[in-house]
Amino acid sequence: MKVAILGYGTVGSGVGEIIMNAATADVKELNVSHILERSENLHRHPLMCDDIQTILQDKSVDVVVETLGGIEPAHTFIIAALKAGKHVVSANKAVIAVYLKEFHEYAQAHGVKFLYEASCGGGIPWIHGLSNAKRIDEIDEIHGIFNGTSNYILDHMGKEHQPFDVILHQAQELGYAEKDPGADIDGIDIQNKLKISSAIAFDCDVPQDIPTFGIRNIRREDIEYADSLHQKIKLIADARRKEDHFYGIVEPQLLDEGSIEASINENLNLTCLHGTTIGPLMFYGQGAGKLPTANAIVQDIIDIQKQCPTAAFTPKVEMHYDSALIEHAYVIRSNLEEAAMKEILGDDLKQCCAFRGMIYYQTKKISAYWMHDKMKEILTQDKDAFMMGIREVNA
Amino acid sequence: MKVAILGYGTVGSGVGEIIMNAATADVKELNVSHILERSENLHRHPLMCDDIQTILQDKSVDVVVETLGGIEPAHTFIIAALKAGKHVVSANKAVIAVYLKEFHEYAQAHGVKFLYEASCGGGIPWIHGLSNAKRIDEIDEIHGIFNGTSNYILDHMGKEHQPFDVILHQAQELGYAEKDPGADIDGIDIQNKLKISSAIAFDCDVPQDIPTFGIRNIRREDIEYADSLHQKIKLIADARRKEDHFYGIVEPQLLDEGSIEASINENLNLTCLHGTTIGPLMFYGQGAGKLPTANAIVQDIIDIQKQCPTAAFTPKVEMHYDSALIEHAYVIRSNLEEAAMKEILGDDLKQCCAFRGMIYYQTKKISAYWMHDKMKEILTQDKDAFMMGIREVNA
Repeated sequence: MKVAILGYGTVGSGVGEIIMNAATADVKELNVSHILERSENLHRHPLMCDDIQTILQDKSVDVVVETLGGIEPAHTFIIAALKAGKHVVSANKAVIAVYLKEFHEYAQAHGVKFLYEASCGGGIPWIHGLSNAKRIDEIDEIHGIFNGTSNYILDHMGKEHQPFDVILHQAQELGYAEKDPGADIDGIDIQNKLKISSAIAFDCDVPQDIPTFGIRNIRREDIEYADSLHQKIKLIADARRKEDHFYGIVEPQLLDEGSIEASINENLNLTCLHGTTIGPLMFYGQGAGKLPTANAIVQDIIDIQKQCPTAAFTPKVEMHYDSALIEHAYVIRSNLEEAAMKEILGDDLKQCCAFRGMIYYQTKKISAYWMHDKMKEILTQDKDAFMMGIREVNA
Repeated sequence: MKVAILGYGTVGSGVGEIIMNAATADVKELNVSHILERSENLHRHPLMCDDIQTILQDKSVDVVVETLGGIEPAHTFIIAALKAGKHVVSANKAVIAVYLKEFHEYAQAHGVKFLYEASCGGGIPWIHGLSNAKRIDEIDEIHGIFNGTSNYILDHMGKEHQPFDVILHQAQELGYAEKDPGADIDGIDIQNKLKISSAIAFDCDVPQDIPTFGIRNIRREDIEYADSLHQKIKLIADARRKEDHFYGIVEPQLLDEGSIEASINENLNLTCLHGTTIGPLMFYGQGAGKLPTANAIVQDIIDIQKQCPTAAFTPKVEMHYDSALIEHAYVIRSNLEEAAMKEILGDDLKQCCAFRGMIYYQTKKISAYWMHDKMKEILTQDKDAFMMGIREVNA
């Protein structure tokens, strides 16, 4: 089976490495035929070309692997490849979070597969696990730690008692964080993964409106405050479904220090689902990185090669947002006076306490939608404020 | 697709319930046609019969689900069903741990599938995850918490500060432990699961010689001793492979209280693998129970129905036991005098300490094989002694 790889950065070159190493009988069935790269890089590998048409017009290419990242030209190239009758495997969460339905429709119309295991949770077989669980169960909840960079930062701020900036810099030095870390620390990367996961889990079109609050404002004191309560702070993606209603959020949450979520260290990921008969099911592994992410891509290619049946994507039109599905108490760290906070939160403000020179406000149990909205108001008056949901463990 | 269920106890009736509920399009494709039960139970369900020949001779039966448990008649019935050209799905770890190779050979000879996801880790897609990981990687390590009963006991002894017998009785009342709890507390159930998992992970025939030490002798003091070291005790199955050598053990191990293994509460299971490119990959869920285990069986049936390609079982003859692959230090609680312990352990005895009236001996880093052997000698002189391996975290 001939494979063309679009983009030969970290993940693309990992795919090349696994296929060229040919360590197993299944991988030996695969061959890299083309690598699309910028013209200035063409000298780096004899299989490189800089024109997508070379790949699209080569009838021997069976699978196109898209590891370009970003929206364009990835979107155009994926559709062109599907139209040319080639299977497409993509690791690109940003483009899939926008065009998942369109990609599936093109794939179906042209009798090929569009697979994207690597887009959520890196090497973790999460999309596969979700799709399989749905063959038997209705899934009523998904949640997890879907971003290694932010988890590394939270873990090491706690272990090393260092401020956010120091640990972010360390993560950048180690290659765990991008030079522009916004997508990771503001929760955008996680939001994309939650959109894709929710669409699969709940049979809905990709949701566009997921309240998201990241860890850019976190301080050492917040982690110490959590420690004092025997809690850990994790950046959690969380989505629920009840009948034809669903809702999702991304936010830092306080978790019991004995919980599985709290035990996820370094840059590792945890993805969780809850189904009717299976109950809780969790997957843990490398959520990013060259070889684990490339592994997920090669798994998809082997599924295509072996003609494994894969689930159709058939979003139901009648699925609705319902912000009442996610409600819990929040802790907000802010230098606003109690009267000013009361002005914003009203009767939902329950109490406040001082901790190491900071003030921590706690709300009653309220809708996540409402709190994320109010937080925007708090940030206009205190741009350094931080909030954490208090995760309630399901019965 | 017509399904005959052999045995209608907890798991068998769970399979019936999921299929008859027909909650999804995939499950709607399945029908229960026969239930094999003892003659005195036949009045309980119109589909019940008490003669295996009725099922074997019915050409319309596609899949036979074996949930009888034990060696016979399960072994005879599975082979008869495979010979009759019926796919077989089994949850029976005891019979599979002995006859895995034979069952695969009969299945291949008769052009049918033999699948057994439910035999290891209940509802967790562990066999599937292992098989898929092997399509790309060499797996060099598997480990985990493969038994819910013993994990429940360890967890609740710690939470409730109660002795073993009290918590075992509680587990029996809750239906988490059998009246005869030997298979669960002595590690035999785990040993069977590790045999099956090792055979798949390492391409070896099912290993017969796995040193196994359970939790029958554990005392409250042992858990408190672990607590004092910020450790938890878990009953761990552990197998390693290096090139054509492998080794496996089942034993209580001391684990860092912040580790994922330590965070597994109640009767839940954790199964872990480590592969060349995927790195660490873990699965968590219900390792037993009616609906989760039935879910795994129905997943196998749907795989058969959809003609999903499944891995052949092709054990390599040249795989060898190598006890040097698992070495670590041990803690032994025993009332033997230091001189007597020194007599048994020789220079490998490193130190001893007193804790709440007990004596805890610690060894140097030694082979697990050697220690399990020496423990038999210790038990002849102190039948209440207990040992724990000190788990070393892989780099």
